[in-house]
Amino acid sequence: MLQINRRVLLAGAASAATATAMSGREAAHAAAPTNGKQASGFYRYKVGDYELIAINDGVWLRAIDDKFVRNAGFADVQKALADSFQPAGKLPIPFTTLVINTGSKLILIDTGTGAQLTAMAPQSGTWDANFAAAGFDPKNVDTILISHFHPDHINGIKTKDGQLRFPNAEISVPAPEWAYWMDDAQMSAAPEGARPAFLNTRRIFADIAKDVKRFEPGGEVAPGITSIAAYGHTPGHTAFAVASGNASMLALSDTTNNPWLFVRNPEWQAVIDTDGPLAVTTRRKMLDRASADRMLVQGYHFPFPASGYITKTANGYDLMPVMWQATL
Amino acid sequence: MLQINRRVLLAGAASAATATAMSGREAAHAAAPTNGKQASGFYRYKVGDYELIAINDGVWLRAIDDKFVRNAGFADVQKALADSFQPAGKLPIPFTTLVINTGSKLILIDTGTGAQLTAMAPQSGTWDANFAAAGFDPKNVDTILISHFHPDHINGIKTKDGQLRFPNAEISVPAPEWAYWMDDAQMSAAPEGARPAFLNTRRIFADIAKDVKRFEPGGEVAPGITSIAAYGHTPGHTAFAVASGNASMLALSDTTNNPWLFVRNPEWQAVIDTDGPLAVTTRRKMLDRASADRMLVQGYHFPFPASGYITKTANGYDLMPVMWQATL
Repeated sequence: MLQINRRVLLAGAASAATATAMSGREAAHAAAPTNGKQASGFYRYKVGDYELIAINDGVWLRAIDDKFVRNAGFADVQKALADSFQPAGKLPIPFTTLVINTGSKLILIDTGTGAQLTAMAPQSGTWDANFAAAGFDPKNVDTILISHFHPDHINGIKTKDGQLRFPNAEISVPAPEWAYWMDDAQMSAAPEGARPAFLNTRRIFADIAKDVKRFEPGGEVAPGITSIAAYGHTPGHTAFAVASGNASMLALSDTTNNPWLFVRNPEWQAVIDTDGPLAVTTRRKMLDRASADRMLVQGYHFPFPASGYITKTANGYDLMPVMWQATL
Repeated sequence: MLQINRRVLLAGAASAATATAMSGREAAHAAAPTNGKQASGFYRYKVGDYELIAINDGVWLRAIDDKFVRNAGFADVQKALADSFQPAGKLPIPFTTLVINTGSKLILIDTGTGAQLTAMAPQSGTWDANFAAAGFDPKNVDTILISHFHPDHINGIKTKDGQLRFPNAEISVPAPEWAYWMDDAQMSAAPEGARPAFLNTRRIFADIAKDVKRFEPGGEVAPGITSIAAYGHTPGHTAFAVASGNASMLALSDTTNNPWLFVRNPEWQAVIDTDGPLAVTTRRKMLDRASADRMLVQGYHFPFPASGYITKTANGYDLMPVMWQATL
């Protein structure tokens, strides 16, 4: 009764080739051409009275080797990739920023790549199109909150030639993040490979320094939005809790990168974490709290729409992605 | 260092109320109005040379009680809902049909509700808008394949007033499904509650009977598409394997309903399965094969975009949803 097997599937494939060859004669109706075009990468949902809008900025298919996770064998990393049906050796690292519309303020948490990482990640840089598809104009943004100073989070503040992309937005950044990245002594002390990131922060912030608000994580930074110190990934890495009415959610920023690696194995230290052990401690605390409180979370590098719930497992945690909802 | 707790979140909520009250004075820039509009519900991906397009038809938020799963305690069902972060007592049952563009033929597997279940499921009936957003016109459809005769799968064949919605499409249906639902003796023998479904099949098929192609599941039904007998949910319930080049996928149809209930607990018999024990046997075979072969699967009632991979667990299976891809 149940007849699926490899033979049937291969027979199907063979017949498809035949059918394609015949199709010139067979197609009685105009075929709709294949067009390769995906739906727009935005996703809207409610938290209390607030509308939240996830805006995708594409993906970096990062080639990874045995150095990507500092404290795990590469075979274990490859098994984790296979177990989650991800391509071997190329880790998908999507970028998804979060817009919060309070009804009177439009707030943006992180700004994406500003289409300035396309050489490294040719599938990134789609933020503008998705932001526009969601019905927004950069001029509408009142407030920009920055989680940390890695280029995929701050580059969108400016255009490639140094113009501000959000002319009406006040920019707020974590004070300890500023203290680390803008300090020339830190830049000199950092390994050579980190130097471009230090120079990039200067490119973005040096000439607007007096207009950039620096906050100590732990307090309210916008209406209903509380900053949370979540250090480790970078020295001043910050998460954000969004609350409206009785509802709330937690924007984890880069507390974990790809969840199938680092939510499932929270003790793994990615080479991109400035302080691996501290990042692990922070990650466990955040994921513990998120699972205990059954909070909706968003992760900047989670699969689009980048939100879901954290569950506890025997050795770590897991991500239950949100069910896509057609209506809010 | 990590300062998130309920106090902070509640403080955030309180301040939000204050901020909203002040916003009339504070908002220096025109706020983008909240608009409640979700992105279009289509998702495009490749299987070999074929383009597949998932088209969402909304969702039925079905009130469930202790009768919904015949052979499980309601406490267990409610726990499964809670474990998967679904609303208590209202089971989201999304509808997602599959379009297959072979490059020369446009094939549609199941037709959705035709906006004819909106009284029961007010959030359904969005198929037309999503199909159009994906760039298609009903006139483009060459072939319709039907998995089974439940109204959410066949109603889209016709408009409410009996017109064909896909004027150029050949319609193919499983012969055993036709034999069951179109048989007046079966209709008389069926419980009173099943009568509307029998009458509905007549409304859809009676006047076009001579044009409807009936196939015995197990063979090729369209270029590269093989039908697979998957009886139990209904007497002639059929799945489909799609193959192109070296790639393939499996459209499970209603082999399982909501995956967090029935993929995770494959032995559970939903009240909507005509033959519960047979549905369980079929389900286990299909999920076993899908997990062993690591096949991409699509489920008509899976969370949009309704595709993913099946993994084996201690007591059943789990669904790993696909990672959304911005580019094909």
